[in-house]
Amino acid sequence: MKATIERATLLKALSHVQSVVERRNTIPILSNVLLEASADGGVKLMATDLDLQIVETIGAAVDTPGAITVPAHTLFDIARKLSEGSQVQLTAAEGKMLIVAGRARFNLQTLPRDDFPVIAEGELPTRFELPAETLKQIIDKTRFAISTEETRYYLNGIFLHVSDDATPVLKAAATDGHRLARVTVPRPDGAEGMPDVIIPRKCVAELRKLLDEVDGSVEVSLSPTKIRFGMGAAILTSKLIDGTFPDYSRVIPTGNDKLLKIDPRSFEDGVDRVATIASEKTRAVKMALERDKITLSVTSPENGTAAEEVSGDYTSLPFEIGFNARYLLDILGQIEGDTVEIHLADAAAPTLIRENDKAPALYVLMPMRV
Amino acid sequence: MKATIERATLLKALSHVQSVVERRNTIPILSNVLLEASADGGVKLMATDLDLQIVETIGAAVDTPGAITVPAHTLFDIARKLSEGSQVQLTAAEGKMLIVAGRARFNLQTLPRDDFPVIAEGELPTRFELPAETLKQIIDKTRFAISTEETRYYLNGIFLHVSDDATPVLKAAATDGHRLARVTVPRPDGAEGMPDVIIPRKCVAELRKLLDEVDGSVEVSLSPTKIRFGMGAAILTSKLIDGTFPDYSRVIPTGNDKLLKIDPRSFEDGVDRVATIASEKTRAVKMALERDKITLSVTSPENGTAAEEVSGDYTSLPFEIGFNARYLLDILGQIEGDTVEIHLADAAAPTLIRENDKAPALYVLMPMRV
Repeated sequence: MKATIERATLLKALSHVQSVVERRNTIPILSNVLLEASADGGVKLMATDLDLQIVETIGAAVDTPGAITVPAHTLFDIARKLSEGSQVQLTAAEGKMLIVAGRARFNLQTLPRDDFPVIAEGELPTRFELPAETLKQIIDKTRFAISTEETRYYLNGIFLHVSDDATPVLKAAATDGHRLARVTVPRPDGAEGMPDVIIPRKCVAELRKLLDEVDGSVEVSLSPTKIRFGMGAAILTSKLIDGTFPDYSRVIPTGNDKLLKIDPRSFEDGVDRVATIASEKTRAVKMALERDKITLSVTSPENGTAAEEVSGDYTSLPFEIGFNARYLLDILGQIEGDTVEIHLADAAAPTLIRENDKAPALYVLMPMRV
Repeated sequence: MKATIERATLLKALSHVQSVVERRNTIPILSNVLLEASADGGVKLMATDLDLQIVETIGAAVDTPGAITVPAHTLFDIARKLSEGSQVQLTAAEGKMLIVAGRARFNLQTLPRDDFPVIAEGELPTRFELPAETLKQIIDKTRFAISTEETRYYLNGIFLHVSDDATPVLKAAATDGHRLARVTVPRPDGAEGMPDVIIPRKCVAELRKLLDEVDGSVEVSLSPTKIRFGMGAAILTSKLIDGTFPDYSRVIPTGNDKLLKIDPRSFEDGVDRVATIASEKTRAVKMALERDKITLSVTSPENGTAAEEVSGDYTSLPFEIGFNARYLLDILGQIEGDTVEIHLADAAAPTLIRENDKAPALYVLMPMRV
């Protein structure tokens, strides 16, 4: 293999693929990136952790087609440090890869391409397109609720499924048992009849990073066990979580009769301020609701007390309820409009939070005893 | 105590003093900041770790003079989160301190001011002024060489002493046994006859942060055991390291007969690039010197090899020498001009690095076997 690539092009692609490569690997070749130069001029970069795989193709002047694998993080570090605008010549020979750029030369240890594990995509019968902006929204408004408890592996991702409501929709949901986030978007053409899937947290994270550089649409293809995101030059393929996501629709309250409408920014700031003195462990903040007035407060045995009044529209009976400040802030951080609706029942019942009944996103938050 | 302070003023002062407060303290009051409101309108903030003490005085509308101590990090976090432009009212009563700003109210636990430990400065007979810029230079060009080995406590700081060379000078030096950095500046008026002192690393770090906000001069006062830096509203007082700094002048080579003159930027970039593949442990880079050409190289059993040629003025006999790349980069990072002089003797002898013989800073670097 022999190919010459513009440093900036190589660096950008490597920054994507090295991010999939774990820092510690018991299988040496998983630390490597596969470089494949093809006769028609182009180098394919590929990295995997056996569950998630990224492939990116970049322009190159290919002298000799061929393929080799080299340590991904090392190659990325080298590319970062090469001078701007330099041309990087990659030559594989005798079990090494020579990198020449300007007056710098590197000779890296390699592993043979045939040992590189490739995720077999198999058939991906469901195919649809989603605007990158929509996919970003789905991720941003749900990922914070993904569980990190490894024993509940079926909650360690975003659940994606179609549903025939009044109009056909695609729904994305994530929950850790304390809070639930759900986004509903119109069902894209081709998604009808798709299997329910759970996209793992790491795939979500890598996808989100790549989306920042995507305009236009993303091509999603999936089967019950694999999902593939096509974003122009980059393709991300992931195994899906093999488990059953709980029937979350049952925890979305429908009869909450107390409605608070409030400015999300002043509410967020107030919660953030009073939470300053909350103990790291509980982070409980109390909301005392009275007519058009909410008093936020925190009591910490070590630190003292904090309280702040925030105005809002509230006309039901006064009552008190507690929430984990962190969870409340996660949700409020996703509300973009100038009003948020908080639908409450009582101090022990799940609370529904949304911008309004037209908003694609809704959140359910379990209260805490305070 | 009752006083009202502009939030930005309070925040800035707290950002300085909280930085002196350690995150973990076995003595509770060391987590606190002392607030002292005086009748003539002004609040003094004070924090300490028993070795280092900071005092800063800020403008305030004082209703009732008095003093109290509250957790420094908590008060800082609160001040950070208060709305911009708000007025912060601090009221101490019944063992608590009430903080009111806008609609937010905090009630913090306090500890009595009388329990707050104050470092007794004692007599500080030596007094001189140094321009803030000079003091910044002294710190920046030496601090990286301060030892972190706690057993060699007498190397855990910057050594400051005066010397009657051809002209009287003030010298600052730091070493960890592998490299030495020394800066020489004209002796300021008042420094004559001052005792040799070692300023501890933490004092150096806090001083350097404060200097970013100082124009003009810093008033330095010291005795054999304490040092005090007066910077307008802020005063930093530190105990000095009670030990003897080694006679470092003996390790500064005077007879190195091989001279390399090189552009520090291309040298630095080359070292940084080839060091990419150096193993984390040794980080050894080899320099092969030939007539007007230096070849930098690294060999790593795990990763492979790297080499880069850099041009330079060199006319002595060819030879090879190795350095720790990190140490070399630390020094080159402090060279501002477009040439650096590297005075070499042989592969085992200390090497002298400096911009030129007029430069205030000089560095000595021990070679490594490669």
